[in-house]
Amino acid sequence: MKKYQRLAQQIISQIDLGVWLPGEKLPSLREQVASSGMSFMTVSHAYQLLESQGRIVARPQSGYYVAARPVEPQPAPPVQVMRDEAVDINTYIFDVLQSSRDPAVVPFASAFPDPRLFPLQQLTRSLANVSKTATAISIIENLPPGNAGLRHAIARRYARQGMNISPDEIVITAGALEALNLSLQAVTEPGDWVIVENPCFYGALQALERLRLKALSVATDVREGIDYEALEQALKTWPVKACWLMTNSQNPLGFTLSPEKKARLVALLTRYNVTLIEDDVYSELYFGREKPLPAKAWDRNDMTLHCSSFSKCLVAGFRIGWVAAGKHARRIQQLQLMSTLSTSTPMQLALVDYLATGRYDAHLRRLRRTLAERKQQAWHALMRYLPAGVKIHHSDSGYFLWLELPAPLDAGLLREAALRHQISIAPGKMFSTSDVWTPFFRFNTSWAWGEREEEAVIKLGELIRAMLTR
Amino acid sequence: MKKYQRLAQQIISQIDLGVWLPGEKLPSLREQVASSGMSFMTVSHAYQLLESQGRIVARPQSGYYVAARPVEPQPAPPVQVMRDEAVDINTYIFDVLQSSRDPAVVPFASAFPDPRLFPLQQLTRSLANVSKTATAISIIENLPPGNAGLRHAIARRYARQGMNISPDEIVITAGALEALNLSLQAVTEPGDWVIVENPCFYGALQALERLRLKALSVATDVREGIDYEALEQALKTWPVKACWLMTNSQNPLGFTLSPEKKARLVALLTRYNVTLIEDDVYSELYFGREKPLPAKAWDRNDMTLHCSSFSKCLVAGFRIGWVAAGKHARRIQQLQLMSTLSTSTPMQLALVDYLATGRYDAHLRRLRRTLAERKQQAWHALMRYLPAGVKIHHSDSGYFLWLELPAPLDAGLLREAALRHQISIAPGKMFSTSDVWTPFFRFNTSWAWGEREEEAVIKLGELIRAMLTR
Repeated sequence: MKKYQRLAQQIISQIDLGVWLPGEKLPSLREQVASSGMSFMTVSHAYQLLESQGRIVARPQSGYYVAARPVEPQPAPPVQVMRDEAVDINTYIFDVLQSSRDPAVVPFASAFPDPRLFPLQQLTRSLANVSKTATAISIIENLPPGNAGLRHAIARRYARQGMNISPDEIVITAGALEALNLSLQAVTEPGDWVIVENPCFYGALQALERLRLKALSVATDVREGIDYEALEQALKTWPVKACWLMTNSQNPLGFTLSPEKKARLVALLTRYNVTLIEDDVYSELYFGREKPLPAKAWDRNDMTLHCSSFSKCLVAGFRIGWVAAGKHARRIQQLQLMSTLSTSTPMQLALVDYLATGRYDAHLRRLRRTLAERKQQAWHALMRYLPAGVKIHHSDSGYFLWLELPAPLDAGLLREAALRHQISIAPGKMFSTSDVWTPFFRFNTSWAWGEREEEAVIKLGELIRAMLTR
Repeated sequence: MKKYQRLAQQIISQIDLGVWLPGEKLPSLREQVASSGMSFMTVSHAYQLLESQGRIVARPQSGYYVAARPVEPQPAPPVQVMRDEAVDINTYIFDVLQSSRDPAVVPFASAFPDPRLFPLQQLTRSLANVSKTATAISIIENLPPGNAGLRHAIARRYARQGMNISPDEIVITAGALEALNLSLQAVTEPGDWVIVENPCFYGALQALERLRLKALSVATDVREGIDYEALEQALKTWPVKACWLMTNSQNPLGFTLSPEKKARLVALLTRYNVTLIEDDVYSELYFGREKPLPAKAWDRNDMTLHCSSFSKCLVAGFRIGWVAAGKHARRIQQLQLMSTLSTSTPMQLALVDYLATGRYDAHLRRLRRTLAERKQQAWHALMRYLPAGVKIHHSDSGYFLWLELPAPLDAGLLREAALRHQISIAPGKMFSTSDVWTPFFRFNTSWAWGEREEEAVIKLGELIRAMLTR
């Protein structure tokens, strides 16, 4: 064992002993050098090793923190064929989303980040700039595939990640949701089999139901992502047409697939000639050093439709998303002409104006820092106020935490109780048609942490304790 | 025969003899009184009779004009069951629409009015106002059913027509096209039968295909609208779920159903328990004295989903439409949450701001006057430059003319030839899956009439003559 490995081992023991608690800041490299007497290089190597093992987390401009307690999630069934008489979860999802609209309710159920984190001033300035131009009211220039300037700006952002995406392959849509729906429709016929994660973004389940597709829900682990053995089993057994999943900051679990896993995923799907519909709306909200690549970056056979938007990282109300659709771009434009015709012109122009200011990246850096801090704060409060039996699955990106009540508690019942106290949470059953996620819920950590939030978490703790003693 | 009837008869004879040509202005009431020696009352009665017979047309603040030459359209089959292997007209429609985007092409094929007719200055001022007053632009406030202020403004406009529509029944959508698609989806299951007009707005055919619905195309006359006998035959024979049609300024034919016909339509559909999906996007573009009511005004059983938008009469690029959905409002909101999530917030707020200025009605009056003038100009040019064998079906609203080439000429071939000369037209086959409309095309008259337009019509005439002599 090398020196840096010994040091890493030592820190792991300290963490296991409770010397450093999950979420706490570790001594800085400098302090560690001073206290251990080892070289800066050795200490730095040790920290990198711990980081690669997921035991500690680096936060830019802040330091190293102990990672969340590793908790063992209850396993989901490896592959689940969704019942034909699909549970009508739409009404339930609708109710949960509606309840998070009420400004009196603490919106832990919300799918959107705190809108106060968005660069309101610059965006409204862009909107004002656009309102001076005559093209704002015209639709013709912005019929599918959408404004050329915006498609170029998006293509340039792909290029910065080393991805060659032509603006002609990009179609501007009403948020990522329209992009995902059109993509799914472009590559399937009713009755086709489609693979989704279990649990997955509820929008995928709704789209499958709407398009009369048959779903295969493949077990997905809170840290490792989709179960590759189960995935291959499903591909072998059923004539699957498409696979809809999230590779970065998966909703609701939060994991980001490693580059190796992304490469493996693309290889596996390509082998079975299955189209990947990649939902990548959180890719800008990574906490590490570099923006993670989408799986599409490994795709050499034009088998991936990459869908994203500005709704989670810049502005939600504009409703601007896109799909990098490759050979499917023309078909997607045709489908859009049949459904919404196009995306509103001023919103597209305002985004082009904003992106031209060059402030987007600075905004994203601030946003990531703030989201990381708030996630940490929320996590601390949850650790402190919820009963010890509640497991908190932490991930190092985005603004969701995935919480697990001690079985047999039902997060749906907790939701109802909480709502009576003006607190919303997003129960696990929104994200799956199986019932293994009954004790789970998704928690939005993007809100500025204040008295109201703290009290809401204290109340959640009381409610869970009351459920436990019943 | 009364005096006024005699005068009316006399004027008809003069028109038939060519004393007054179609589109020409008749002597004013005052002039007629002077020349005939009859009383003002008698002359006024005679003109009203002629107007009710469709022989002359009143234009506000201008006078009376000879109506378009009545021409006999070729009959469509009464009821046509759309083939299951529905012709893929989508690619064709897509190509036609795409070609009208090119600014070098004279856009007679366009579905939209000249955007220069829209109140650019006020709209951009509203957009600028929104950009000044926007607080944290949040999507939360505008999830379906959409901005409350906008829904109230729309409800008030219904109220002015004597219709009681609660803002709660209204759902804001991405243009009327989304409203129509969601409405159709809300009341049907794949495999259901739906009645459409023949010819009809191509969006209806596309929606049916997309939702795997079976279509019954019912013969529709260029002046009388849908054939009620054929309609009832279809309702008797097939288990029809819904009927999608246009009651005002039908696209592409241009007719507006009389109040009696609207009442009869609603009664008939109600008797067979069939939901009416009413596409009413041109209702503000009437040329008469009063805005025509939608069929929904006669519906006492909540059997009509009334869909409209601001895209054809105020601004196309904002992409704002709505549906007055009655009991289906909640289901439509759910469906929208699954497809586009919502309509962009700033666009909704800008419309609220614009409507609050109180300038909308004055704009509409100007717009109607200009569209009527331009239609007249275009019609005169077409009468002058196209071969006499071309029939021009005129209607007194909107900005379309429906033209019929002498059989067996194919408007699709004319389109191809015209496009080589940078002129676009919208061939009949876009509006039907039957081939009876092959010699027809739709012509957009909303453009300011200038040298370019005149030359384009002269070229069209030459091309048709060349086709005739081939």
